[in-house]
Amino acid sequence: MLAEIITIGDEILIGQIIDTNSAFIAQELNQIGVSVYQITSVQDERSHILKAFEEAESRADVIIITGGLGPTKDDITKLTLCEYFGDTLVERKEVLTHVEELFKKYISTPISDMNRRQALVPSKAIVLKNASGTAPGMWIKRNNKVFVSLPGVPFEMKGLIQNEVIPRIVKEFHRPFILHRTLITYGVGESAIAEKIEDWENALPLFIKLAYLPNLGKVRLRLTAKGTDKVGIANAVEEEIQKLYGIIGDIIFGEDQNGALEEIVGKILTKKQCTVATAESCTGGAIAERITSVPGASAYFKGSVVCYATEVKIKLLNVSEEVIKTHSVVSAPVAEAMASNVKELLGTDFAIATTGNAGPTKGDSDADVGTVFIAIASPSGVYVEKFMMGNHRERIIQKTVNKAFELLQKEILKF
Amino acid sequence: MLAEIITIGDEILIGQIIDTNSAFIAQELNQIGVSVYQITSVQDERSHILKAFEEAESRADVIIITGGLGPTKDDITKLTLCEYFGDTLVERKEVLTHVEELFKKYISTPISDMNRRQALVPSKAIVLKNASGTAPGMWIKRNNKVFVSLPGVPFEMKGLIQNEVIPRIVKEFHRPFILHRTLITYGVGESAIAEKIEDWENALPLFIKLAYLPNLGKVRLRLTAKGTDKVGIANAVEEEIQKLYGIIGDIIFGEDQNGALEEIVGKILTKKQCTVATAESCTGGAIAERITSVPGASAYFKGSVVCYATEVKIKLLNVSEEVIKTHSVVSAPVAEAMASNVKELLGTDFAIATTGNAGPTKGDSDADVGTVFIAIASPSGVYVEKFMMGNHRERIIQKTVNKAFELLQKEILKF
Repeated sequence: MLAEIITIGDEILIGQIIDTNSAFIAQELNQIGVSVYQITSVQDERSHILKAFEEAESRADVIIITGGLGPTKDDITKLTLCEYFGDTLVERKEVLTHVEELFKKYISTPISDMNRRQALVPSKAIVLKNASGTAPGMWIKRNNKVFVSLPGVPFEMKGLIQNEVIPRIVKEFHRPFILHRTLITYGVGESAIAEKIEDWENALPLFIKLAYLPNLGKVRLRLTAKGTDKVGIANAVEEEIQKLYGIIGDIIFGEDQNGALEEIVGKILTKKQCTVATAESCTGGAIAERITSVPGASAYFKGSVVCYATEVKIKLLNVSEEVIKTHSVVSAPVAEAMASNVKELLGTDFAIATTGNAGPTKGDSDADVGTVFIAIASPSGVYVEKFMMGNHRERIIQKTVNKAFELLQKEILKF
Repeated sequence: MLAEIITIGDEILIGQIIDTNSAFIAQELNQIGVSVYQITSVQDERSHILKAFEEAESRADVIIITGGLGPTKDDITKLTLCEYFGDTLVERKEVLTHVEELFKKYISTPISDMNRRQALVPSKAIVLKNASGTAPGMWIKRNNKVFVSLPGVPFEMKGLIQNEVIPRIVKEFHRPFILHRTLITYGVGESAIAEKIEDWENALPLFIKLAYLPNLGKVRLRLTAKGTDKVGIANAVEEEIQKLYGIIGDIIFGEDQNGALEEIVGKILTKKQCTVATAESCTGGAIAERITSVPGASAYFKGSVVCYATEVKIKLLNVSEEVIKTHSVVSAPVAEAMASNVKELLGTDFAIATTGNAGPTKGDSDADVGTVFIAIASPSGVYVEKFMMGNHRERIIQKTVNKAFELLQKEILKF
């Protein structure tokens, strides 16, 4: 079963915003066995939108449209939907009531005619309730194909997808089973892996597809299988993964778990009732930011000392001036001291420390751009490792953050 | 002049990655007067790619393709380009030499046949040198339309766009002038603004378009004008903006400056030779992370104390236990103390402090989810303000970060 996603709005086409909605929708659809065939971003313009509707309907069963549903003039999605379906707008009592309630509760200005127009919906549409905003979602079915129109504001769209759209698709459509499994490899490049596993890849059953996803120092291998026999597919993929371990088991670090690194680490820390702190130089708070992006992080995260300047390492983190002079501020002993001291200072079970040079120029040390030391303090001591993270600032920081989570996870799992 | 962007790769369609490339490319094209008509994400599959090529060529002058250029089997872009242009792959000496040099310099494993295949390029293509990777960019022109194929790895793509693609388009195509100007408004909703400026909007010249962009507590109004007379267009837009100030000047906060908030603040701090530190509770390091994402931040940023746990506020930041007990940890006095104390502790000119409840549950205080206090310490004292940031964790954090930068900027500009 196929879906297409159409995003409406000039702001994506002029690069003013990044389309994050489509990835979210695609993930949600995939989980219920719906494949996204194409994602199309079109202008806020009648004929362009109509053409996109027509093309998408010719290829897919479900067409999800986001954007262009606000109260103002540049939003023409509803009128274009009417034109496409030969329909007219009618006022829906339940939407009007909802808009009035939201205004009473949250908004100080009086409700206007423009706000009331949110209640105008194509007569053939089923209204999907938008708990977080005034623009309703819409579900229009014709000849066993469905158009779903959602507001573009991400958190409104997310609520509608999860609470309204997915349950309806599950109820109304038969879907195959789609399985993705992704293995993480380290230390060997994409092409070298491809040569090693060439015979295996050529012998893969036709319903299993392989993709190479190189990124930030690791290559992920994604296997995708599709069909109706859920158990058969899962077994076949498992069998192929076992074969792969036989060929390149030495470079497979693990399987992409469900969730971001910070969520996985958070779950383990919660389960083990352990706490963590960070002392960050080159990552500048990026690790703390990722940890605290997870709801409930206060159960295991106490805090962080971001010691960007050398003097802060000395004054606040008690790193010895002598050690810094002898080894330089980008060194294993400094990373070790940062990790130990922040762990002690904040009274945690574990601590992460980073010191390095993210460039573009050399800072308070002579270390080459890309040199990073990561230290993990644990109840039994401090582990420290040196990395060369390339020469691109943003990538150096992101690679360091990811690597720090991996090292922390390894250390925690020892306890 | 119109462009289209085609991204190739299942990873976007299954939602495994967010397409950030297209926004970057669209911005770069816009700056040289090229409008992006459509962005299309298609599967790694021959017939689907061919169809997308055909449709894009029928509408646009420049077609920019990203993705599908790595060394492995799932990359079929080059072969499909050959099929589309009736061409064949030939080995390019300069690409081979470049690949060999990269391997010598950075990669420990020996160069393989698969890596050498990167040097195979359609014979009709001009090779665009990829300084950061092994996959070359390609420029294929036919009947005054051009197809540009680039690797999907963001930093390789960015280098190619800026160093190769944009200069070539500027050289080979006549382009109109496109001007965007965006005003930031606060405190009034999208529809209320629309009613106030309805007459003005209806009287806009046809070559000026208006868009409403509501996000995180503010509504941005974007004016877009397009034409050949650069000066005439700029004057006309300026005139309309002045009229707008006459109508809603009280809610216009300023104009979207070129660059992110953290870059603007960084520039001001550098210019004034001032330094800053942060003390972060509910933002968990997100402000420090944003500050240090800017190259050269070490000139003005000393560090941060992320005091997620109440005990860290007391122990490390010397916030009085008495004050916390009396006013609760989410309060103006605590935010003030955090800002003053981190400023003193780290010896900076300015400091930002945040304390609040980002949810989903209440933490160490009874404050409602969404309550946030932001304090700015400056050489002349501490400014503190209370905000209600809604009830969505991610949005509360991002709104707080943005608001903190705005408040800091206001305070710095007083000196």
